[in-house]
Amino acid sequence: MTVARLSIEDLAKIVETRKGADPETSYTAKLLHRGVGQCAKKLGEEAVETVIASLAGDRAAIRAEAADLIYHLVVLLAAADVELEEIYAELGRREGTSGIAEKASRRI
Amino acid sequence: MTVARLSIEDLAKIVETRKGADPETSYTAKLLHRGVGQCAKKLGEEAVETVIASLAGDRAAIRAEAADLIYHLVVLLAAADVELEEIYAELGRREGTSGIAEKASRRI
Amino acid sequence: MTVARLSIEDLAKIVETRKGADPETSYTAKLLHRGVGQCAKKLGEEAVETVIASLAGDRAAIRAEAADLIYHLVVLLAAADVELEEIYAELGRREGTSGIAEKASRRI
Amino acid sequence: MTVARLSIEDLAKIVETRKGADPETSYTAKLLHRGVGQCAKKLGEEAVETVIASLAGDRAAIRAEAADLIYHLVVLLAAADVELEEIYAELGRREGTSGIAEKASRRI
Repeated sequence: MTVARLSIEDLAKIVETRKGADPETSYTAKLLHRGVGQCAKKLGEEAVETVIASLAGDRAAIRAEAADLIYHLVVLLAAADVELEEIYAELGRREGTSGIAEKASRRI
Repeated sequence: MTVARLSIEDLAKIVETRKGADPETSYTAKLLHRGVGQCAKKLGEEAVETVIASLAGDRAAIRAEAADLIYHLVVLLAAADVELEEIYAELGRREGTSGIAEKASRRI
Repeated sequence: MTVARLSIEDLAKIVETRKGADPETSYTAKLLHRGVGQCAKKLGEEAVETVIASLAGDRAAIRAEAADLIYHLVVLLAAADVELEEIYAELGRREGTSGIAEKASRRI
Repeated sequence: MTVARLSIEDLAKIVETRKGADPETSYTAKLLHRGVGQCAKKLGEEAVETVIASLAGDRAAIRAEAADLIYHLVVLLAAADVELEEIYAELGRREGTSGIAEKASRRI
């Protein structure tokens, strides 16, 4: 079987379809079923592990933990009913402001 | 001026161009200049703020903090010389495994 | 001036006296004034910095960050109106259970 | 059996005695055996849970999570060979400075 690339956008679509799935058969459905608090807890844990992998300078661990972090961020957004596109609009708004005058940029 | 959508992929490309920029004029260049430890610290802080915004059920704050989190994840990956595509390949590998038999899936 | 030892219990007493202090002249009073959310955010940030200092194996940084973490934990408990003694009772309850039979201990 | 109060100092002494214990029979010995990275990871996770309990305003959860956080901080310090007294000296040094002139205090 071909192992395909899975982007954060692909992930957001898959997670969306898990909203109504059986918590017994899908890990995503189980997380969503437990609610925002549990999803936020998992996000926090994966962030800690990404920090640790980064400090250890372990590239394979960074890849694995960043993948976990992105996945749990997507799940948290789904649990909170926030669309990935809303985040992209927010990022665009910031770049739209700061991109005009790089010198004055606070963020990017 | 039109405020455009900025995806994580767009962001990764912008951050890449900041690698050689002047730390005095670009926030991204300043972070990259400070190294992986400082970038990891910022990621951890933004994760905490995303957790707090989620628990508070504040959708505007979730959007803002998730945008910060994605931005600082992209910067950390750049500081650690890990490509976003490596994360997507990792996510694809997992879905490639778990997608065959949803019932046995541990992750998605 | 003699620099004295300051224990977590001493700190809890000092923080208690800051509850009514002027946020303009006391950092503790300012934090307490901002509420549990802000205190929790600071705790999370200091935990991230303690993790980073530990991974870096920097003993001076561990001392400084652990001191920050303990201080912000004490402030958070004060903001949430939880006494340090309640935490010690909880720890005692656990040890009281697990201490009888070390072999069955899950925690300590 | 009487359930006793267990302070952070008591905890530090108990954890010290676990340094040579069998990882199979003591949770503390198992954590210490896994090293600073694993202990730091647990500290980060417990901090996230303390943040969540605080935001939820759940006093019983705050007590339980703060107890976990203190326990894992003590274990991390033991793993890093940093004494609790070193942290107390650091806290004393800060208060020794800031206590003279409350108005100029940055920390306490």
